[in-house]
Amino acid sequence: MQVSQEIQSIVERTRTLVREVVLPLDDAHDGDIEAAGGDELRTRLQAAAQQAGVFAPHAPVDCGGLGLGMVDRAPVFEEAGYSLFGPVALNINAPDEGNIHLLDHVATSAQRERYLVPLTRGEVRSAFAMTEPAPGAGADPSMLATRATRVDGGWVLNGLKRFITGADGAGFFITMARTSGEPGGAGGATMFLMPASTEGLTVTRHVGMVDTSMIGGHCEVLYEDAFVPDEDVLGGVDEGFRYAQVRLGPARMTHVMRWTGAVRRAHEVAVSYVAGREAFGSRLADQGMVQQLIADSEIDLAATRALLMEACRVLDDGGRGNQQTSIAKTFAAEALHRVADRAQQLCGGLGVSTELPVARIAREVRPFRIYDGPSEVHRWSIARRAVRAITAEQGA
Amino acid sequence: MQVSQEIQSIVERTRTLVREVVLPLDDAHDGDIEAAGGDELRTRLQAAAQQAGVFAPHAPVDCGGLGLGMVDRAPVFEEAGYSLFGPVALNINAPDEGNIHLLDHVATSAQRERYLVPLTRGEVRSAFAMTEPAPGAGADPSMLATRATRVDGGWVLNGLKRFITGADGAGFFITMARTSGEPGGAGGATMFLMPASTEGLTVTRHVGMVDTSMIGGHCEVLYEDAFVPDEDVLGGVDEGFRYAQVRLGPARMTHVMRWTGAVRRAHEVAVSYVAGREAFGSRLADQGMVQQLIADSEIDLAATRALLMEACRVLDDGGRGNQQTSIAKTFAAEALHRVADRAQQLCGGLGVSTELPVARIAREVRPFRIYDGPSEVHRWSIARRAVRAITAEQGA
Amino acid sequence: MQVSQEIQSIVERTRTLVREVVLPLDDAHDGDIEAAGGDELRTRLQAAAQQAGVFAPHAPVDCGGLGLGMVDRAPVFEEAGYSLFGPVALNINAPDEGNIHLLDHVATSAQRERYLVPLTRGEVRSAFAMTEPAPGAGADPSMLATRATRVDGGWVLNGLKRFITGADGAGFFITMARTSGEPGGAGGATMFLMPASTEGLTVTRHVGMVDTSMIGGHCEVLYEDAFVPDEDVLGGVDEGFRYAQVRLGPARMTHVMRWTGAVRRAHEVAVSYVAGREAFGSRLADQGMVQQLIADSEIDLAATRALLMEACRVLDDGGRGNQQTSIAKTFAAEALHRVADRAQQLCGGLGVSTELPVARIAREVRPFRIYDGPSEVHRWSIARRAVRAITAEQGA
Amino acid sequence: MQVSQEIQSIVERTRTLVREVVLPLDDAHDGDIEAAGGDELRTRLQAAAQQAGVFAPHAPVDCGGLGLGMVDRAPVFEEAGYSLFGPVALNINAPDEGNIHLLDHVATSAQRERYLVPLTRGEVRSAFAMTEPAPGAGADPSMLATRATRVDGGWVLNGLKRFITGADGAGFFITMARTSGEPGGAGGATMFLMPASTEGLTVTRHVGMVDTSMIGGHCEVLYEDAFVPDEDVLGGVDEGFRYAQVRLGPARMTHVMRWTGAVRRAHEVAVSYVAGREAFGSRLADQGMVQQLIADSEIDLAATRALLMEACRVLDDGGRGNQQTSIAKTFAAEALHRVADRAQQLCGGLGVSTELPVARIAREVRPFRIYDGPSEVHRWSIARRAVRAITAEQGA
Repeated sequence: MQVSQEIQSIVERTRTLVREVVLPLDDAHDGDIEAAGGDELRTRLQAAAQQAGVFAPHAPVDCGGLGLGMVDRAPVFEEAGYSLFGPVALNINAPDEGNIHLLDHVATSAQRERYLVPLTRGEVRSAFAMTEPAPGAGADPSMLATRATRVDGGWVLNGLKRFITGADGAGFFITMARTSGEPGGAGGATMFLMPASTEGLTVTRHVGMVDTSMIGGHCEVLYEDAFVPDEDVLGGVDEGFRYAQVRLGPARMTHVMRWTGAVRRAHEVAVSYVAGREAFGSRLADQGMVQQLIADSEIDLAATRALLMEACRVLDDGGRGNQQTSIAKTFAAEALHRVADRAQQLCGGLGVSTELPVARIAREVRPFRIYDGPSEVHRWSIARRAVRAITAEQGA
Repeated sequence: MQVSQEIQSIVERTRTLVREVVLPLDDAHDGDIEAAGGDELRTRLQAAAQQAGVFAPHAPVDCGGLGLGMVDRAPVFEEAGYSLFGPVALNINAPDEGNIHLLDHVATSAQRERYLVPLTRGEVRSAFAMTEPAPGAGADPSMLATRATRVDGGWVLNGLKRFITGADGAGFFITMARTSGEPGGAGGATMFLMPASTEGLTVTRHVGMVDTSMIGGHCEVLYEDAFVPDEDVLGGVDEGFRYAQVRLGPARMTHVMRWTGAVRRAHEVAVSYVAGREAFGSRLADQGMVQQLIADSEIDLAATRALLMEACRVLDDGGRGNQQTSIAKTFAAEALHRVADRAQQLCGGLGVSTELPVARIAREVRPFRIYDGPSEVHRWSIARRAVRAITAEQGA
Repeated sequence: MQVSQEIQSIVERTRTLVREVVLPLDDAHDGDIEAAGGDELRTRLQAAAQQAGVFAPHAPVDCGGLGLGMVDRAPVFEEAGYSLFGPVALNINAPDEGNIHLLDHVATSAQRERYLVPLTRGEVRSAFAMTEPAPGAGADPSMLATRATRVDGGWVLNGLKRFITGADGAGFFITMARTSGEPGGAGGATMFLMPASTEGLTVTRHVGMVDTSMIGGHCEVLYEDAFVPDEDVLGGVDEGFRYAQVRLGPARMTHVMRWTGAVRRAHEVAVSYVAGREAFGSRLADQGMVQQLIADSEIDLAATRALLMEACRVLDDGGRGNQQTSIAKTFAAEALHRVADRAQQLCGGLGVSTELPVARIAREVRPFRIYDGPSEVHRWSIARRAVRAITAEQGA
Repeated sequence: MQVSQEIQSIVERTRTLVREVVLPLDDAHDGDIEAAGGDELRTRLQAAAQQAGVFAPHAPVDCGGLGLGMVDRAPVFEEAGYSLFGPVALNINAPDEGNIHLLDHVATSAQRERYLVPLTRGEVRSAFAMTEPAPGAGADPSMLATRATRVDGGWVLNGLKRFITGADGAGFFITMARTSGEPGGAGGATMFLMPASTEGLTVTRHVGMVDTSMIGGHCEVLYEDAFVPDEDVLGGVDEGFRYAQVRLGPARMTHVMRWTGAVRRAHEVAVSYVAGREAFGSRLADQGMVQQLIADSEIDLAATRALLMEACRVLDDGGRGNQQTSIAKTFAAEALHRVADRAQQLCGGLGVSTELPVARIAREVRPFRIYDGPSEVHRWSIARRAVRAITAEQGA
């Protein structure tokens, strides 16, 4: 891929920032962002990113971002992702990054001013509250159980959300609630913008997860008669599922970008390790089974990037890219997991220790096969689209 | 990928030709090209391709080809490959396709006239004689044992070649022979252009192989004091290994293109099959394990094409693309094998029969994991390049 | 596993017979048994096996067999399977082997005399006619469409069977036909003993299959008002599905035994090959990626045998062993396929040729992932049993 | 497998103890044994196991154990392993379990009295100090760098050990030190019994590891002129490598037993989970891709147990079982990892949380592919033995 000089410069500045400023903090706390300082750390790192001119590269220019498209984001996000704390520094972390994208597409100008601008500037964090405990919305969004009831001048929300990333400390929530139909059936959902101070909205607890680099954790959020005025309805009523798709395609791809960076680091650490160790009479890096692990990881990384770029081109061209992003996400989540796992194996005992970053990266990347749609659900969608396409063509 | 209108038109005409003219013959003979008519069939199919304006799309324009670059070739070659006989029709089959590329880069104008032009026009076929029985050149070209000895006005070749595709009936051979050094050590090889009528050059036998769609088979070729005049030395003396690389990178990629077409057919046949069958109370295509097989194949095909296009872009930009073509070839050979195997599984008993084309395609594609460098040798190269690159960067 | 001296002696005599008499014929005809002589060859090989005292080791003693149980059969059948023609020599090939087992359990003494005894002695071959073209009985036996209608003194059968192994030249058929209910629903099937001479029973054609070592091919068999007298009903009316289970469990395991032998040969040939070749400066057998292929195949063979023996012990103890035989069959079919495929890869170009037996063995073993129930159907059964067992235990 | 009534009774008492007493503590502390009480907890749990009559089932009867052989241990150890704390309760945890086995084979009667008896009774814990930081002994024991120098009345040890499981709080160490030759070359090692109070022996730090259920952690241990009197030399001088083999074979197999129990729990939790959840209109447990995950895990567990039992039979029969234990260990470590990973995937978001035990079990079992010899080193050994065996046979 040819990359313009401008993008190359952003990539290099990001690389310098991450290697010199961010990575040492990541390493010192085994990737635990709360232990490393949480929002206080975030503020500090974001100031450094602003100074380096690489802050909010994906955000709209009128909100202070660099306005990069999907293809141009890829190398920048990958460099940022090289440290687990890098995306926080650039303000391109989930869920804020996806929320910026969503608000940019759907928000009214008043909402833009009130929610998008401070979010882009890093003045607040946000959360995207969609998933729920069983039998509510999980991989199957149609099971959405949190309900918004029409009242005078707005809506009242009741329900329980779970695995809400970044909820603790978020300035506002984009909440998905059912405005028509019944769980499991047809019907519509609507998105609501809700400041954290909304009465009846409570972050009840953190759910312990294997990954620890997401600021604000993964929480349960309770809605008890929480009121949302009409001006904070995001987009049209009953249009929530459609907007969620708008958000999801690119959000999956930026996940891939960031985690490709993290996993590349694990791979490079492992390759350096085997290049510097001897056993059984030769350098580990010269032994066939070691070379096979390295080559398989090179192939996985190359295929991840190639599928990512195909999907980004479709998105930049204005396509929905459902099939392409599903394929790229599913492959990437599994491939990156394999690469991180091989890196552990290459490092032997140190690969399952906290002495090297590889076990930490493997731990962080494991959930990606579940987050943003489990591989099984993506495969189901991919197959159904393929069957439709092929039978249509054969029938034609 | 955006494809220009001109390319799209070539693709569509290729598709029509292949589906209407070529495929029925392929199906009628279970992909056995000799049984289907051999060179007589080739002549007929190539006339049809010329009439359709899709003949020799890769060949230089001054030789009567369409002059397409690697990126543009990909969709055309894939359409041609949809039938195992399609590449013969378009004159883009191995080894001729790679030989055209090689001659276009290295031949003198006299050689161009004598060898390249008739080859491009389909007036003759050619063979590329490099590999030898053990302990000669196989995956390790440095073991080259066939020797060319300097004599007055030219060279005399002695040795035995094996697995020489297309040898039986070829009009001429590009023979690789050692002109300095010893097998297993350093030293040089040279390429020689040799008409089939050369005295001392004999196609001694066909080696039975699992694939049957290569015209002229895979043969043993014996050189007994075979004389080559100086004007038929191809390129510089002792430069043969370098030229082989020039030939190999693109040749690997066009293999991928053609076999992607063949395997796509197996996949489409299988998907149509499961879309039309019921068992255990529902359509096979709606059952989860069947959907998983379909989705995995969609992912494999998408990743194959994405890696292919990355490598083609590098080649079109003038790069050597050693790492990219190795990665794309290795991934593709294994992925296409998996897709063909899944297609067999999806079709049940018919998938291991001659009633459907899937078993035939699986049989044809299996050797690709060995041809053009076994996966293991590519992985060895990929790993060595990766270790060098990563340790250089870390050291910097 | 400890093996008694008696069994060890049978094993060794089988080994000698197979290596000295059978294998050369197999190799001379690339495993194509019809090309090698068909029933004429069978008669000759079976005479040799009788002379060696290893004929019909599984058959009941009163019918002239050696009466070995499942555990004792395993090493004998594996040795026989070392050549693709070995099971024919010992009269332990599918479908005869399973039919002998079935008749031994279900046949009346008159049927025993008329059908079992000559079958055991190798005087005739037999076929088991169950599967049908879509939408009939395939992996889902409940879709059985061939129908038996009650008439005076017997039954009249109508329907079409497909993939009937050994049908061409079989002396008699065990035909499964529906005697109550409708395809896809509940209802019963019955087994009928039918001499090949039965009017209205016609072997209409061979279906071309990738495997060629089964004598009598895989055929279509047509039933047009074919009459079966009451004395040739095998077992009770409407009990056919139950008997099919009786036959299937052990039949799956003997398939595993035979194919383990064949695949072991591919593995040994490949290991010998890499032990005798050099490339890139060392013996192939000493290179890491080659060692990985070898080790993975050793593990696959060991696990195949270990699961097989677990299942055989259950069967010898009188258990149904549904879960154990499903697990062993599914694992073995996939593992043996992998081992054969690795053997091909280890042998390079020769591995996809007819110069070595490995490509042939890979071709023969591929259908096992479909024959005797596709892996997907077995996995479905295995999962359902596991869910039932685990939820029952958790609930208790 | 038939299990005697006596063993069955031990199994059931173990199951009851583990489910009622041990598991709740495990769950309450996410498998972190130090957080749960460390040695204080151990004492409590071991008293319960003694009361239940299932304490030290593997230890020699004259030392207070139950004297079970390898085959009989398997189901008991698996039940104990169902909780990560279970092996501590029964005193069958690594490294004590292996040390008991080693001492039982090699110790003098004085050493038996002083070291083995209290260890068997749970009065002390022990450590096995072999591995070292690079460039010392890791997967390649011949690189052993810790050195024992002959002095008057004994030996003086100098060196650094790493990843010494259970070192913190151990009552004594079995230390492996070089007594002849040079690292990387030939030469001999000797085992030394060393009370924790030995002057010059210091546990310098814990190495942070992904697993947390091993009491006493994984530590660095420093030897600075640490003196060992002659009576504490374990076995013969320069015989250490041989004894290490005596210890390793069975130790690998008991690892498999324990971790099979842990992973079975993850599998059962996951199956119960999918049996109780709905999405996309049906129970998760009835969806094909979910069933495939379940079936694959059933197969992996069955094959793990089958290979384990084959190896145990060889060991009980007095064999070294090198090939069998290498194969069983390598397969099991990878299979159990897959089963735990699938259990995570089946549980969706909860599978990467601390709400269910599956993520914890996956974390604990990951290192097994590295501990007791990385898979790559085992494959290297397996392949070398196979090449020797097959070429010997072919040559004969």
